[in-house]
Amino acid sequence: MHALIRQCRSDPPPELTAVARTEGISPERMAEAVQRGRIVIPANPRRNARLIPIGEGCRVKVNVNIGTSQGRCDPDLEMVKAAAAIDAGADALMDLSTAGDLREMRRKILSLDIPVGTVPIYEAVRRAGSAADLTADILFSVIREQARQGVDFMTLHSGVNLDAFEALRLDPRTLGVVSRGGAFHVAWMAATGEENPLAKEFDYLLEILAEEDVTLSLGDGMRPGALVDASRLAKTTEYLTLGRQARIALQAGVQRMIEGPGHIPIHEVAWNVKVIKEVTDHAPLYLLGPLVTDIATGYDHVVGAIGGAIAASAGADFLCMVSPAEHLALPDEREIIEGTRVARIAAHVGDISRRGGVSGCPEEERMAIARRDLDWEGQYAEMLFPDHARAIHDRDTERETCSMCGDLCAVKMVREIFDGDQKK
Amino acid sequence: MHALIRQCRSDPPPELTAVARTEGISPERMAEAVQRGRIVIPANPRRNARLIPIGEGCRVKVNVNIGTSQGRCDPDLEMVKAAAAIDAGADALMDLSTAGDLREMRRKILSLDIPVGTVPIYEAVRRAGSAADLTADILFSVIREQARQGVDFMTLHSGVNLDAFEALRLDPRTLGVVSRGGAFHVAWMAATGEENPLAKEFDYLLEILAEEDVTLSLGDGMRPGALVDASRLAKTTEYLTLGRQARIALQAGVQRMIEGPGHIPIHEVAWNVKVIKEVTDHAPLYLLGPLVTDIATGYDHVVGAIGGAIAASAGADFLCMVSPAEHLALPDEREIIEGTRVARIAAHVGDISRRGGVSGCPEEERMAIARRDLDWEGQYAEMLFPDHARAIHDRDTERETCSMCGDLCAVKMVREIFDGDQKK
Repeated sequence: MHALIRQCRSDPPPELTAVARTEGISPERMAEAVQRGRIVIPANPRRNARLIPIGEGCRVKVNVNIGTSQGRCDPDLEMVKAAAAIDAGADALMDLSTAGDLREMRRKILSLDIPVGTVPIYEAVRRAGSAADLTADILFSVIREQARQGVDFMTLHSGVNLDAFEALRLDPRTLGVVSRGGAFHVAWMAATGEENPLAKEFDYLLEILAEEDVTLSLGDGMRPGALVDASRLAKTTEYLTLGRQARIALQAGVQRMIEGPGHIPIHEVAWNVKVIKEVTDHAPLYLLGPLVTDIATGYDHVVGAIGGAIAASAGADFLCMVSPAEHLALPDEREIIEGTRVARIAAHVGDISRRGGVSGCPEEERMAIARRDLDWEGQYAEMLFPDHARAIHDRDTERETCSMCGDLCAVKMVREIFDGDQKK
Repeated sequence: MHALIRQCRSDPPPELTAVARTEGISPERMAEAVQRGRIVIPANPRRNARLIPIGEGCRVKVNVNIGTSQGRCDPDLEMVKAAAAIDAGADALMDLSTAGDLREMRRKILSLDIPVGTVPIYEAVRRAGSAADLTADILFSVIREQARQGVDFMTLHSGVNLDAFEALRLDPRTLGVVSRGGAFHVAWMAATGEENPLAKEFDYLLEILAEEDVTLSLGDGMRPGALVDASRLAKTTEYLTLGRQARIALQAGVQRMIEGPGHIPIHEVAWNVKVIKEVTDHAPLYLLGPLVTDIATGYDHVVGAIGGAIAASAGADFLCMVSPAEHLALPDEREIIEGTRVARIAAHVGDISRRGGVSGCPEEERMAIARRDLDWEGQYAEMLFPDHARAIHDRDTERETCSMCGDLCAVKMVREIFDGDQKK
């Protein structure tokens, strides 16, 4: 589906019709939203992966990060994790590999059926030898190579510019920069004193992305890395830059989304999402977390699900899985599954609100009816993770009710009293 | 600490001073809040358990339900679960046993050091033989016996009255009644056509509770049991009754809190909490969930943590642990631990908001500083579950950073750039 934004200016392309139907919106509405930059469909024409729309009016989607690191470089294990993530409900994958044969690792991941994203600065820094030795040539070459290999969307930190760097000095943060990509750019600016090439040559970057039809994910290199850093200036400075770049990218025919906002206290999540949406002209918002406490390490998947559900309800469109190993270690397969499942839950919880309540999610009503009828197969059919639930239920002997209440099941007692005059 | 409310009318009793200090509020303020019914400290004078204040200005507390059921009646296992719950951060326990020697089970649980609650209707129905055969005498006898055994707080469904029953018929719900206690009272009213004795003889109930110094937990027998039932009339009808009863109880010198509100879509959680708080004169609010989706069975602990964090942030004071086995089976020890931990997280996330942001939770700032310094022991000292986190971190070899990023640790890179001019 080449040059999607331009195509959407005339009649909706045929591929869009099926995609729109799965989201429950009209192809015309989806085409208009793509053209206005309120929905993106990351789809490199060199691949033939599933079309996953992200943004206004669409169900909230989930991304899962995988990839090798210096401490654990096992491409086969990463592929096992990728498959587990898809099985647990991932809509997209990002390959964040930093060790081993990066091109070969990408080839493997690109063989899967869903959109794949990367963070090209990782490979560029490795090729340069260090962040300080990076050149614009190396960075743009890597972007072009990865695009030609078929990558659907790329996180690029064009917002980590001298302005943001200055904001960081003017209003220091306890944790400085916690984005790996952001840190590379900050290190480079600190070493050279020059503007980030992605910001300085933003138009050239857009030329490459437009030519190769890659979706730009405007990275939040300045996201706060702790609750105490949630309200410092670097974050908002970066969002204003991303808002300008989002408008320029759209004019250049490049699909783009925004990343944000890191660690935020619960009562500040919703308005942060609203502000980002406003300054970026309601571009699709791709979120890591937000994490709403820093002291529950080992359970950051749950912390991220709390923040993510609220953010999705407030307008975020795409949630990045946080694993239980976040801040501690590279996640293993089981942790990828747990993280993906709870992100999936957060996305669905947000959808209920985005779709105007349970009336927009008929699976909730079907579930309630099956539960009233103690119809277990009917319940499993609606559940997000039926096999997991079945294993818990089936370990005890009560098959009609469950071992929590047994014959003292409230549903069973009251059903017998009302005997059919309950709401259908 | 006998007759706490009356004592608080004069000088704060000495026991209150230490408790107030742990909450970071003055003894005078706490005494006033107890007297006005905005804080409860469930503490049966026949026991000597820890004093746990619940309500306005206090940290959010967590209750864990344990107890035998017909399907699994193993008092020793329940005690193992109780100990695990306390270790995972429970502030109170409820014994919901319905099988075996109920009095002996209570005796065991009352030997522990934290407040213990019960739902006396369970034992009363068992003694009567069935809900229809229950009499007021049996019910009040059981309440008095349990009070004299040392129970600190009791869930009593005085709000499940003929009004609520009528509301249920007028505006039927898919799942009818899902509260076990509520269902018993509905079954009794359906069989006898008479008013619930707890409502009809509410003054007599208060006499017993005042005499024995037991805290009344006004049960939400009409809580919605599915998202599709969230907005039906029975729920609000019951809250208005509980609001009246809360005022009468306070006048009678009985400490009381309110239970609520079951299954609620995410965007309706905060205002539900506000409405309940308003109609009950800001009585302490004790919450199960709320569950913000019905289709994530097997992960209802996470679903409850999402709803609970939002509710706590909006004013709920006491969260009941939801286990991963909710709606499926009686939880095992591991599930009690998981459920308690995520409830603990939800409570803390709510506290950040209730205490005016991270400035009210200095552990968040200490954590950020330890993380910046890659000071792992310092981080573990602030974490809610340090042993769990340590096991994840220590499985790989990177001890200074972690195996997620290794040497490419953003914190490490940027710390070296700014070299000390970061915020202290």
